[in-house]
Amino acid sequence: MNKTIEVCFTPKLFADITTSDDYIVVLADILRATTSICAAFQNGVKEIIPVANLDEARAMKEKGYLVASEQDGKKLEWADFGNSAFNFNAEAIGGKTLVYCTTNGTRAIEVAKNASQIAMGAFVNISALAGWLVRENKNVVILCSGWKNKFCIEDSLFAGALCEKILVHKGFETFCDSAHASIDLWDIARGDLFAYLEKAAHRHRLKKLGLDDVIPYSFRPDTTHVVPVFEQGVIRNRG
Amino acid sequence: MNKTIEVCFTPKLFADITTSDDYIVVLADILRATTSICAAFQNGVKEIIPVANLDEARAMKEKGYLVASEQDGKKLEWADFGNSAFNFNAEAIGGKTLVYCTTNGTRAIEVAKNASQIAMGAFVNISALAGWLVRENKNVVILCSGWKNKFCIEDSLFAGALCEKILVHKGFETFCDSAHASIDLWDIARGDLFAYLEKAAHRHRLKKLGLDDVIPYSFRPDTTHVVPVFEQGVIRNRG
Repeated sequence: MNKTIEVCFTPKLFADITTSDDYIVVLADILRATTSICAAFQNGVKEIIPVANLDEARAMKEKGYLVASEQDGKKLEWADFGNSAFNFNAEAIGGKTLVYCTTNGTRAIEVAKNASQIAMGAFVNISALAGWLVRENKNVVILCSGWKNKFCIEDSLFAGALCEKILVHKGFETFCDSAHASIDLWDIARGDLFAYLEKAAHRHRLKKLGLDDVIPYSFRPDTTHVVPVFEQGVIRNRG
Repeated sequence: MNKTIEVCFTPKLFADITTSDDYIVVLADILRATTSICAAFQNGVKEIIPVANLDEARAMKEKGYLVASEQDGKKLEWADFGNSAFNFNAEAIGGKTLVYCTTNGTRAIEVAKNASQIAMGAFVNISALAGWLVRENKNVVILCSGWKNKFCIEDSLFAGALCEKILVHKGFETFCDSAHASIDLWDIARGDLFAYLEKAAHRHRLKKLGLDDVIPYSFRPDTTHVVPVFEQGVIRNRG
């Protein structure tokens, strides 16, 4: 029997996914958590512990962990890194355990807890991830982080691009309107991605904060082969 | 100051809309409630009382009201009409009060209760509705009924078409990713709408039930000038 792909535009809609048996969730938070987590593994981090808020992050710092944590786009004074993909380098994090504070990401992991596995998806690892998903051969739900529970363009474009990559393989299909819509949006956007992203509300928020320097990196496909997977509280590379 | 347009892909996301001051909600349930309600007003119904479930509908029937109510796409034996736009004709409903049983529609009205007005939107009344919205000159939230809390293509296409019609008028703008996505999907679909709708999961559900005969009617624009508006428990034509 074919495996199915579904797209969920925000964590708030996850409870209504159709898939009920064995499935993998791919988490997408393109302009922050999932791209940054891939970048950290590309730079040799051993494992990442995601935490939901600044208090937890600070407590982990006091226990001696390296911590990535920011507020309003700025690294907190006591933290080792901000949350941007550009903050990590091999000298600082190679072989280490990193605590990464992400409210959106941790909430998404929490809603997806019944999945057999939760993988981190981004344009930077899209082909490696697609290959891994095809080999795992399970139903797939792509869970977009969105922005404050709302649909957001950048995560949906990634969902469309990933659907397309998986659906070229025999044995996968979709009956999900959100998946079809994502694929079509990706198909419009791919020709001139940065022009298309001018429409994205979150892009303008980042620009205001001076954080939009990370956008070209976040949309460049396949700069890494890592496949970060969350299991029992910790993210490790399964790629 | 410009008025804004937002699109909400399912009632479950309505709590997170950005608009907080005076706004109008446009309800869209293209393949059932909102198209049918427009058809009933086009056929001269005086007013429509929406009810949430079969028990309420049956109780209203016993009080002597004309009732539209169906289960699994079939008119219930005790009801006067099913829920399809094709069920109404001027002889039967002209000048009368109709009770219309719609679980989706009633839930959407309930979540939108803080709106200053709730209008019924469909392709069949799209230009009349757009003209009315521009004249009212308030912020607009287009609330798609979706299907079991999920994003659905047909309501989203309507949202895109309506956004486009309003945004040609000075004084309206949008910063909503869902609105931009809807407009783009509409732009892809408009050239060959019925081919595009083959992707829609709900279309296949209707086909299985033998109810897809209503689709060409539901996507034909501007067959009526009515603008049904819900106020204090009753829908009346304000067009």
